[in-house]
Amino acid sequence: MRPGKLDEGEIEYALSSLKGWTRNGTSITRTFAFKKFLDGIAWVDKVALAAERLDHHPDLDIRYNKIAATLSTHSAGGLTKLDFELAREMDALG
Amino acid sequence: MRPGKLDEGEIEYALSSLKGWTRNGTSITRTFAFKKFLDGIAWVDKVALAAERLDHHPDLDIRYNKIAATLSTHSAGGLTKLDFELAREMDALG
Repeated sequence: MRPGKLDEGEIEYALSSLKGWTRNGTSITRTFAFKKFLDGIAWVDKVALAAERLDHHPDLDIRYNKIAATLSTHSAGGLTKLDFELAREMDALG
Repeated sequence: MRPGKLDEGEIEYALSSLKGWTRNGTSITRTFAFKKFLDGIAWVDKVALAAERLDHHPDLDIRYNKIAATLSTHSAGGLTKLDFELAREMDALG
């Protein structure tokens, strides 16, 4: 079963446990910076495997050594705990 | 030496040899669609190696199994033959 939409209080609480992520309405976003272009690509590969495991896929905008990640649960019409779980995994891999 | 900016006639000619790419002012763009998310990621890995070899890096926007690629030569302030070379390599790998 897919998780339900978080309410405002839950979102604030989950966001407060993360660093570098900002909220834009129904999504959260963070830009990751890497020393080299291929370091960023190696991170994308690891994130992709985490995304497949969670069956939850981030939007990734690759701009040389900077990669902007955006998370939202479209099927729920907002943010769910899946978004924050993937955010934490992306942080740990970054 | 880095290649110089192409003129309008050269851009039209180079663009006519490609399929699926559209021009937006000083850049060209194409959206690649893949059967599965990880197929797109595998393509990104191959494109990344081509980009490093050419020392020319595409903007890549990953949206699940669709990836939008945008090419421009910022140092030249427009499109150069490097953009079309990388576009052809991306097509061949896609």
